[in-house]
Amino acid sequence: MNPTTETRDLPRTSTATRARTMRAVVKAAAGAGAEIREVPVPAAGPGELLLRVLRAGVCGTDLHIVEWDRWSAGRLKPPVTLGHEFVGEVVECGSGVTGFAPGDRVSCESHIICNHCLACRTGNGHVCENTRILGVDVNGGFAQFVAVPAANAWRAPANISLEAAAVMEPLGNAVHTAFAGPLSGCNIAVTGCGPIGLFAIGVARAAGAARVFASDVSAYRLDLARKMNADAVIDVSRESFPERVRELTGGNGLDGVLEMSGSPAAMRDGLAALRNGGRLSLLGLPKEPFELDWNRLVIFKGVTIHGIIGRRMFETWVQMDNLLGSGRLDVRPALTHVMPMEKFLDAIALLRSGNAGKVVLVPWGLEAGGSA
Amino acid sequence: MNPTTETRDLPRTSTATRARTMRAVVKAAAGAGAEIREVPVPAAGPGELLLRVLRAGVCGTDLHIVEWDRWSAGRLKPPVTLGHEFVGEVVECGSGVTGFAPGDRVSCESHIICNHCLACRTGNGHVCENTRILGVDVNGGFAQFVAVPAANAWRAPANISLEAAAVMEPLGNAVHTAFAGPLSGCNIAVTGCGPIGLFAIGVARAAGAARVFASDVSAYRLDLARKMNADAVIDVSRESFPERVRELTGGNGLDGVLEMSGSPAAMRDGLAALRNGGRLSLLGLPKEPFELDWNRLVIFKGVTIHGIIGRRMFETWVQMDNLLGSGRLDVRPALTHVMPMEKFLDAIALLRSGNAGKVVLVPWGLEAGGSA
Amino acid sequence: MNPTTETRDLPRTSTATRARTMRAVVKAAAGAGAEIREVPVPAAGPGELLLRVLRAGVCGTDLHIVEWDRWSAGRLKPPVTLGHEFVGEVVECGSGVTGFAPGDRVSCESHIICNHCLACRTGNGHVCENTRILGVDVNGGFAQFVAVPAANAWRAPANISLEAAAVMEPLGNAVHTAFAGPLSGCNIAVTGCGPIGLFAIGVARAAGAARVFASDVSAYRLDLARKMNADAVIDVSRESFPERVRELTGGNGLDGVLEMSGSPAAMRDGLAALRNGGRLSLLGLPKEPFELDWNRLVIFKGVTIHGIIGRRMFETWVQMDNLLGSGRLDVRPALTHVMPMEKFLDAIALLRSGNAGKVVLVPWGLEAGGSA
Amino acid sequence: MNPTTETRDLPRTSTATRARTMRAVVKAAAGAGAEIREVPVPAAGPGELLLRVLRAGVCGTDLHIVEWDRWSAGRLKPPVTLGHEFVGEVVECGSGVTGFAPGDRVSCESHIICNHCLACRTGNGHVCENTRILGVDVNGGFAQFVAVPAANAWRAPANISLEAAAVMEPLGNAVHTAFAGPLSGCNIAVTGCGPIGLFAIGVARAAGAARVFASDVSAYRLDLARKMNADAVIDVSRESFPERVRELTGGNGLDGVLEMSGSPAAMRDGLAALRNGGRLSLLGLPKEPFELDWNRLVIFKGVTIHGIIGRRMFETWVQMDNLLGSGRLDVRPALTHVMPMEKFLDAIALLRSGNAGKVVLVPWGLEAGGSA
Repeated sequence: MNPTTETRDLPRTSTATRARTMRAVVKAAAGAGAEIREVPVPAAGPGELLLRVLRAGVCGTDLHIVEWDRWSAGRLKPPVTLGHEFVGEVVECGSGVTGFAPGDRVSCESHIICNHCLACRTGNGHVCENTRILGVDVNGGFAQFVAVPAANAWRAPANISLEAAAVMEPLGNAVHTAFAGPLSGCNIAVTGCGPIGLFAIGVARAAGAARVFASDVSAYRLDLARKMNADAVIDVSRESFPERVRELTGGNGLDGVLEMSGSPAAMRDGLAALRNGGRLSLLGLPKEPFELDWNRLVIFKGVTIHGIIGRRMFETWVQMDNLLGSGRLDVRPALTHVMPMEKFLDAIALLRSGNAGKVVLVPWGLEAGGSA
Repeated sequence: MNPTTETRDLPRTSTATRARTMRAVVKAAAGAGAEIREVPVPAAGPGELLLRVLRAGVCGTDLHIVEWDRWSAGRLKPPVTLGHEFVGEVVECGSGVTGFAPGDRVSCESHIICNHCLACRTGNGHVCENTRILGVDVNGGFAQFVAVPAANAWRAPANISLEAAAVMEPLGNAVHTAFAGPLSGCNIAVTGCGPIGLFAIGVARAAGAARVFASDVSAYRLDLARKMNADAVIDVSRESFPERVRELTGGNGLDGVLEMSGSPAAMRDGLAALRNGGRLSLLGLPKEPFELDWNRLVIFKGVTIHGIIGRRMFETWVQMDNLLGSGRLDVRPALTHVMPMEKFLDAIALLRSGNAGKVVLVPWGLEAGGSA
Repeated sequence: MNPTTETRDLPRTSTATRARTMRAVVKAAAGAGAEIREVPVPAAGPGELLLRVLRAGVCGTDLHIVEWDRWSAGRLKPPVTLGHEFVGEVVECGSGVTGFAPGDRVSCESHIICNHCLACRTGNGHVCENTRILGVDVNGGFAQFVAVPAANAWRAPANISLEAAAVMEPLGNAVHTAFAGPLSGCNIAVTGCGPIGLFAIGVARAAGAARVFASDVSAYRLDLARKMNADAVIDVSRESFPERVRELTGGNGLDGVLEMSGSPAAMRDGLAALRNGGRLSLLGLPKEPFELDWNRLVIFKGVTIHGIIGRRMFETWVQMDNLLGSGRLDVRPALTHVMPMEKFLDAIALLRSGNAGKVVLVPWGLEAGGSA
Repeated sequence: MNPTTETRDLPRTSTATRARTMRAVVKAAAGAGAEIREVPVPAAGPGELLLRVLRAGVCGTDLHIVEWDRWSAGRLKPPVTLGHEFVGEVVECGSGVTGFAPGDRVSCESHIICNHCLACRTGNGHVCENTRILGVDVNGGFAQFVAVPAANAWRAPANISLEAAAVMEPLGNAVHTAFAGPLSGCNIAVTGCGPIGLFAIGVARAAGAARVFASDVSAYRLDLARKMNADAVIDVSRESFPERVRELTGGNGLDGVLEMSGSPAAMRDGLAALRNGGRLSLLGLPKEPFELDWNRLVIFKGVTIHGIIGRRMFETWVQMDNLLGSGRLDVRPALTHVMPMEKFLDAIALLRSGNAGKVVLVPWGLEAGGSA
């Protein structure tokens, strides 16, 4: 991997000479799989930007879509171009767009919100009732070009690599989860060290937690957690999480748990390890409903539980921009693989193996690290 | 019932002439039951007040203690005088007590906290790790006299009845639950119309909720909910709670649910009826662990869940004092029965029948309403 | 005054037959004064609504504009149609508008925000750096018709009068100020009983304050404060505000002050009357800079001061809608005068006299109360 | 300076052999000055600890007391032993003390609160109406021994130097100020780089601010600010604070200002440099009342101002303990001088010169660094 912070050497495609078609990763039909296809280059509609995609991140959700799980089957309407984490260079501004210009390097919020529902009108667009998602409901960024609403674009900090800029969307999940409760001076644990969990370790540290502990069952992931500077890692396949936390906190317990695994055991352990009055912020999606001893773990302890989805628009992006732009937060140890977008299915296989942090894809025609 | 707001006609018992023994409701031994016994009158130790009990409330917890459920069997060390909701007149101040004088009418916080644990030292004494409870771990107020730490005493507002002053402890549970999230201008539902649920209806209205809905399966209790001025009542034995809420809120859903029933169905329905980003505050204790569809009901909705226990010391009491003292809150419709303390087991039977709101007991030697 | 809650009897003007010109109150040129003129009927541009104005409120700012004070001279670019508080009936929807239809009765947020600055992108549009104001920077609602961005329109609750719907904008100032800090169960004072102060009394009561006190120097206004159900009124021309508050709160002081007068003395007295740790929310605009004893009034007391401007978009409107729509809040006692819009300068004179609450104007061709 | 983290080599004075008198810095009489005197060793009363003082910090307040300014003249009742910042070793526990034992190394909260007033009973003891202060109202720690309420003692983290432990009281002021509003991911400025300002720089960084800027007029202090790792320092004798901030924040302005100077210009500049909706937290005490352009600097910007006093008990101490104990926060660059307590008046002269950060005193009989 060879991170690139510069876009100036990239070939600028003017509208005039731009090709009519492009390569893209497409969910072509209901059912398992995904294919690489030649599709039309989109146009920037009113209020939209046309981006030349520079890098894109692969998400666990992409794995579910390829596998065509129940959620995917109920939600996607093929054909659709996948990819909801990406950075691109603005090549065209649709009518009515202000504040962006060709050449701008932008990362994208993937949730396209309605601006009309109660949630949207009260500053809670992250829980908009009519959200459409890039790469899920609308063509996304696993392609050479993508059209996005300018309202979803965020000019990426100039000092970060293209790979880091590509993953601001999932990084925003981590920021949103971490910032849902007190952080400064707190003792925090992150349960689950997939890519967002790894990000959350870095975020919690950069954002002022006193101590950040991380748990997982995978030695590979715990090693990445160490590289993200977790103060201690807990291998819950061999150690009791609540007991280890008790030792690490001088018997006080945790101020907060950022739950990234979706594991019922992690959630129960997280609650057990909280101090009375602590908070559990839930981003990881459990596979199915599960039970809890509400009295012992929630009510008698006076705990607060947050369900977390998406990113606050755009408060989370401002926070992320500040943390990345100031250099306080460095997500690079979590970005374990950079691959050509052509090898999308290999990336999916890598994710399935569990031996990867975040995998970043390089679209056709761009050399990974070529300009770095 | 004949509420009394005055204590001036009550006989003042001077220390000199006070009897050595008194009548009390005592859990005498492990196992079901409770008995009325002659026990020694307690003394006011250092920092304590000796109170002549004027009225006491019967709680669902008292029912569990009489029935000797698993929780009771694990916690109580008989013999112990029961009763954790009461108002009394100060008859003696122990050494070092300031701010109280004989004749003061005080209601009591039932949680005796350690003042040393992390929770206590950060203003979260309601989740003190070493809480002892009056009438559970320490002799309580179902007696003619009770000794309490002066730190637990709260001078009751002068304008309220003795019966209302007697139930400030459970009313504080309702206030704590209601005040755990936004109330002013909100649409709130109370699920479960036992005494604390009934109080919560009144509290939410007095504290500025725009609309307060209440649900239960008992016609008797729903009728009391109406008397507490619920804007609408929902009989969940016959109606769908989420559907009815949807109608009542113009499709928006609830801003908050105050869960008072401990029923898994109520909690699931409450979550389903919340608007995205709403809050569920849990006071009702489920009988056993139960499962939840976390993704659909919590995470995708961006909901916040609060576990609630006890009362914030003493912020909750200040709020309660203001609401009662200003006349904004009137809990009398929820106080359905006033009985002699001698008939404690009848009160328990009444509670078990479900056909009661809050039952208030009058100690031996006092006439209910006699001085009103 | 004859409040009207129905619009169905109003003549519906179809686009086809609508006149090309209309009557309007216009600031025609720099300098004192305002005139009634025949001006073109505006069109609904993209994303805009054309409203037939039904009622409009006169604001202290309108008085300043007529008098052409320094602020006005620096801000307005005549000619401009005045009026930033109004309710209208939708007669035409511009292209791209969704969620509104002709016949809808809408009240309007007067701040047209940029949606691009840091404040806008973080849910703080009320402090947008590029705000343009209807009736100040853009033609407003003192006219038979007005074009407004659909994003600024709020469907008024069906149960309130046209006059109440007309003043939701200034009412929102009161809600924003009151909701800037704790209200439920609090002891609150409103300093200054002009129209927004009067609204604030009603808002604080409806939103759950335990006690609401109001101060002013005008007997006329204090009488209106009583009609808005203030628990006590304080004539600061004759009484000491801090002393009176001390009596009224049993020596505790206030939890919050809503400052609506812009008077240095009111602000100092308000701070002095706060309990330690209380809050002062400032909406009233002082005429000029003034000094404060920061140590004694702010720092040693641990007080929080909020500067308040505009309304949170649109959280404040949701709160207002709930309070008005549920019937908890009734602003009618503060609406002292309803006059033909033709008599705008008489309304200004009335405001200047101080012997008015809120003055509401009825546009040409509509009969005040005619359809009520 | 030679920081010491160990107390084990210090001579343990048993009660039996302890001398009856000790050396202390005493304000002996009304008027300027202070003297070193032989005074009785205090005893540990009920609920108190007797501490052997190990290190003590000199505060600007001590300078005012020596100079006998108006505040001192109105407050102190000589004779009183000075010193409100110190760390000591427990040598004796008074009756009723639990949780401490001889040999414990404790730092002390200087505010002795009443536990009875409204502030105290609602978790706001830092604004207790009846606060007595160690070294001001009650004999303090500029002595070989001091008696303190056990409730005021905080076991210092084991990993920090005695000098750092000695200044937890003023460090707590910095933590309280910084934590009064959002920090994580924010752009923060500290105005005024005296000892507490220097601490605040370190605190804001450790607690997760994205960028921390610092301003002063003294080159000496700005140099210390750099050593505390300020991202940029602003010499307001030569540069415009708002302009420089604008550059440093890409035009956005500050999220928060921590005002430590008491200078009217710093406060006005701080407000001007805030983004709309930002916060100003005021700890620095202005010498006298001063005026503000409320409209432009507070109301139109929607700013929040906090008056800050003392430390939250004991939430601030928990936060401080976590930040120091985890090693995230290192205050040593701000501790510029360690001197024998005998040279107290030299320390005062040094403070008056402005060429010092925090000055720490070593009591008689202890060697600075001797045991390090």
